[in-house]
Amino acid sequence: MPRKQNIYQKRQEKIYDWMAQKGIGLLMIEDAEGRRDSNLRWLTGMPADALFFLSAERKSLLVPWDINLARMYGNADFTCPYNDFDRMPVKACVKAAAMFKIQRNSQIEIPSTTSYPQFLRFIEALADFDIVCRDEEGSGEVLEQLRAEKDENELQQIRRAAKITNDIIDFLEKQLRAGKIKTEYNAVQLIENELRKQDCEGTGFEPLAAGPQRSMAIHSFPAYTNSSFGTKGLSILDFGIKYQGYTSDVTLTIAVEPGKTQEKLISLTEKAYVLALGMVRPGLAAAELSSAVDAFFAKSGKTMPHGLGHGIGLDPHEGPYLRSRENNKWILQPGMVITIEPGLYDPRLGGCRLENDVLVTENGREVLTNSRIIRL
Amino acid sequence: MPRKQNIYQKRQEKIYDWMAQKGIGLLMIEDAEGRRDSNLRWLTGMPADALFFLSAERKSLLVPWDINLARMYGNADFTCPYNDFDRMPVKACVKAAAMFKIQRNSQIEIPSTTSYPQFLRFIEALADFDIVCRDEEGSGEVLEQLRAEKDENELQQIRRAAKITNDIIDFLEKQLRAGKIKTEYNAVQLIENELRKQDCEGTGFEPLAAGPQRSMAIHSFPAYTNSSFGTKGLSILDFGIKYQGYTSDVTLTIAVEPGKTQEKLISLTEKAYVLALGMVRPGLAAAELSSAVDAFFAKSGKTMPHGLGHGIGLDPHEGPYLRSRENNKWILQPGMVITIEPGLYDPRLGGCRLENDVLVTENGREVLTNSRIIRL
Repeated sequence: MPRKQNIYQKRQEKIYDWMAQKGIGLLMIEDAEGRRDSNLRWLTGMPADALFFLSAERKSLLVPWDINLARMYGNADFTCPYNDFDRMPVKACVKAAAMFKIQRNSQIEIPSTTSYPQFLRFIEALADFDIVCRDEEGSGEVLEQLRAEKDENELQQIRRAAKITNDIIDFLEKQLRAGKIKTEYNAVQLIENELRKQDCEGTGFEPLAAGPQRSMAIHSFPAYTNSSFGTKGLSILDFGIKYQGYTSDVTLTIAVEPGKTQEKLISLTEKAYVLALGMVRPGLAAAELSSAVDAFFAKSGKTMPHGLGHGIGLDPHEGPYLRSRENNKWILQPGMVITIEPGLYDPRLGGCRLENDVLVTENGREVLTNSRIIRL
Repeated sequence: MPRKQNIYQKRQEKIYDWMAQKGIGLLMIEDAEGRRDSNLRWLTGMPADALFFLSAERKSLLVPWDINLARMYGNADFTCPYNDFDRMPVKACVKAAAMFKIQRNSQIEIPSTTSYPQFLRFIEALADFDIVCRDEEGSGEVLEQLRAEKDENELQQIRRAAKITNDIIDFLEKQLRAGKIKTEYNAVQLIENELRKQDCEGTGFEPLAAGPQRSMAIHSFPAYTNSSFGTKGLSILDFGIKYQGYTSDVTLTIAVEPGKTQEKLISLTEKAYVLALGMVRPGLAAAELSSAVDAFFAKSGKTMPHGLGHGIGLDPHEGPYLRSRENNKWILQPGMVITIEPGLYDPRLGGCRLENDVLVTENGREVLTNSRIIRL
């Protein structure tokens, strides 16, 4: 049972400290359909579908949709069913403010994803308070930064997820070479079957398997089909497995009798990967890393249509983000776990992407997964 | 190829008409990770990850993340890669306003889900315009209403999805009776295998399979495991399959040697289902339907912790919503496809839910799926 573990209390304390520093009376976290927020799980252990309130008095309230699940997973001082508030965030927030005796004119911070129309409802219902909704220098940013640098407990889960992923990759290659994977769905089936044996929660996201006819898309649609896979040309397989909430994220390319121009795509992707990996070290600006790869591709007249990589953890995409944008302020730090995933896509040639998970260490990097370009 | 189909043009025309009526110069739709919006697919055929702009001059612009996918699926007058705007919605909107020569002081409507901080950025970047962001009487509401009443093309896909679902349910029962489904994962595997044979896109949502130890949760966590399924007690299986974008949504309960108190849960659930189904007809207020079931359960001192049902379509949950809330304004209309899914959950006894998909017809209802309580 993951209940009452000290790790959640420790994480909540960090947020209480931050709240005290900023003078915030009440902080609300929301996870709901259409507005998923893994901060709920990171802070409480509750996997989904709840509100969570932290007060200046260092007490917390969990408001779950499913009270039975909350009894199993939730770590909070108080718990109250969401149905008591007709599952309306504003009503629950009014109750939390009263319950924790939040002083008039205090700051109440609500999620930065709160829609503008919903924001107006908070302001109206909580007119005695200072409603704060911000994405810069807000709680979301703090939580994103805290979560980006993994603690020992998290690294343990991530290493386990990587190990399971690596075993699956090796098995996939073996089965591919034995001619036992003929369709995109076959590849996905193998992944699902293997991860279930290892007590994983599931895949970290819908696996993307695209045979030569469909690999030109960054994220193929549908995610996988009964189309042939691993046949002549370039096939892409992008997947992650989820262990105790933590997901891996890797991409394999399977190349079968590639033509000369396809060889060029592969070679450029591999070189970009080596270039990027060699640069990973603490202190490096993520934008610098990403820009180096963009510049490398540009020399050959190629453009990568997506970012170079991103953090992984409870979310398949989280901070830090390896994008070339000017406003990207992420700096690599020890304990961050990132993907490095250069890729190129061509409507006629298909696509090629190579992606592994990399831990930033005190001195440089440690590659956790063993994805590769497989030539059949 | 689903390109250039007349259905998308027809749907866009309906929105242009509404825009003209409301005096809206430019309308923006957004589908992105964390902010999914099936209105994109409904209006353009593009399955995901794009912005879509409709102008008062009845011309449209698609701004996709993946230009290769957009070439295959997108139906718009103009297409421009999202990367040209650093994948920033505000930048793309500024461009669309210029391209369509939107007049100063015109209304530009942005998604009702736009966060408050992001709303401020729109206002700043488009100071010459009247930025509108609303969830009441906005485009989101209009699209939700339009999508709730399915057209002939949609009903065809939904009927096909229901047929495939029914075949899977029958096969599931057969395999359960033959003792071939022993775990939650076995049940999910069977569903995945069968839907792949029928050229489906996938499951409509992550299937929920919960054996007797886990069925007390509304949505079990993890969604499915290797735990035993269909053994003594109550097991729940909640799944949908997606055909041409349209999902079914059914729940089976498998009861094995239920005790007296478990029999009571089953009996109440079945009676609530029959009661609700008998009421379905055009003109009925959704809140009235839902309240009738709440009142029925209350007579036995029971509470259903979720809504009675919801519409299905491109989304697994969409309008109309069958909730008892006072502010629920949905009225059943011919062409709506809803789920009826009463359920009761007990930490010791487990859970019981029965869910089928129902088409509201001119005269009453047509039950599309054949889910049931299976006694082994």
